[in-house]
Amino acid sequence: MARFAKLTEAEIASALEGLSGWQVRDGKLHREYTFPDFVHAFGFMAASAVAIEAMNHHPEWSNVWNRVVVDLITHDSSGITILDVELAKKLESLAERMA
Amino acid sequence: MARFAKLTEAEIASALEGLSGWQVRDGKLHREYTFPDFVHAFGFMAASAVAIEAMNHHPEWSNVWNRVVVDLITHDSSGITILDVELAKKLESLAERMA
Amino acid sequence: MARFAKLTEAEIASALEGLSGWQVRDGKLHREYTFPDFVHAFGFMAASAVAIEAMNHHPEWSNVWNRVVVDLITHDSSGITILDVELAKKLESLAERMA
Amino acid sequence: MARFAKLTEAEIASALEGLSGWQVRDGKLHREYTFPDFVHAFGFMAASAVAIEAMNHHPEWSNVWNRVVVDLITHDSSGITILDVELAKKLESLAERMA
Repeated sequence: MARFAKLTEAEIASALEGLSGWQVRDGKLHREYTFPDFVHAFGFMAASAVAIEAMNHHPEWSNVWNRVVVDLITHDSSGITILDVELAKKLESLAERMA
Repeated sequence: MARFAKLTEAEIASALEGLSGWQVRDGKLHREYTFPDFVHAFGFMAASAVAIEAMNHHPEWSNVWNRVVVDLITHDSSGITILDVELAKKLESLAERMA
Repeated sequence: MARFAKLTEAEIASALEGLSGWQVRDGKLHREYTFPDFVHAFGFMAASAVAIEAMNHHPEWSNVWNRVVVDLITHDSSGITILDVELAKKLESLAERMA
Repeated sequence: MARFAKLTEAEIASALEGLSGWQVRDGKLHREYTFPDFVHAFGFMAASAVAIEAMNHHPEWSNVWNRVVVDLITHDSSGITILDVELAKKLESLAERMA
């Protein structure tokens, strides 16, 4: 089950190098997005939702009009795992489209 | 501009009578929904998003898997207005479908 | 690879018994839905989209305001397979919510 | 009600100059989009759905995996109107994001 092992601080730091705008906050991968408006913010969330369910790993996320705040953690592992890094990459890729 | 007037406590209490599960929390209309799974939770959010933009009044809302938490306030009025009550009714109607 | 075998006419007829409103049309499982309005029609499509991607089996579908028309076929198998029956069941379950 | 007047052929030709990839087909504004995959195709549809309902003018559109086909007509006017041109511009803007 190495796939779900909690990442070390060094591993997280390494992963964050490739994830612009992401940081660790309260033990979770954290990112705040601002889009042009609600249409673009929700387009991002909808595209992400379709991808998320297929990954079977879900974010904690909130939305107010053009803003989306995302927190990622693997509860089963009580920490940040490679699943969170993979989800962050996927969200980042989709957010760039709507930014 | 009576439409955007901040509601009195009595008016809010009256509105809440018809809004099962809603309460005032931190000065906002607050509701927590639990759906069968992420598919249903996001179906609710997507249907709501389409209705929300047409109302031009947006919620503060967050999602974690099958749960959606909603807070409604009219920032321009620094309080709860009839817009929030109308949005709560619309969300309630859509949430019942996916519950 | 029995899972992707083209179903026989008898197998399809049997599957359709449990799928109210579905029929075979032009060699595909066919269903036409009418919802109260666009908000509900799109709520159905969004919930379905999330489920569909996770099944990795996609419909041919079209929408005009409150109507959604669905056609299901497994192109790799040149016919209707158990994948289409499973997708039809999933769509049926979600459509009932928004009907 | 000049706003909903059926456009002349010259007016449509002029509008199409600014709408790359659009053409008139069967008396409707017609466009076929190809996206990288279903996630991006549906992200486009979801963002569009939010904008569409607020415009109160809805497309005829279909989707198969990464493809979305759109046809626009104003049925009340029995032809193409400025509403269709405005909707085409909105869809074009959102499709470019997910293309």
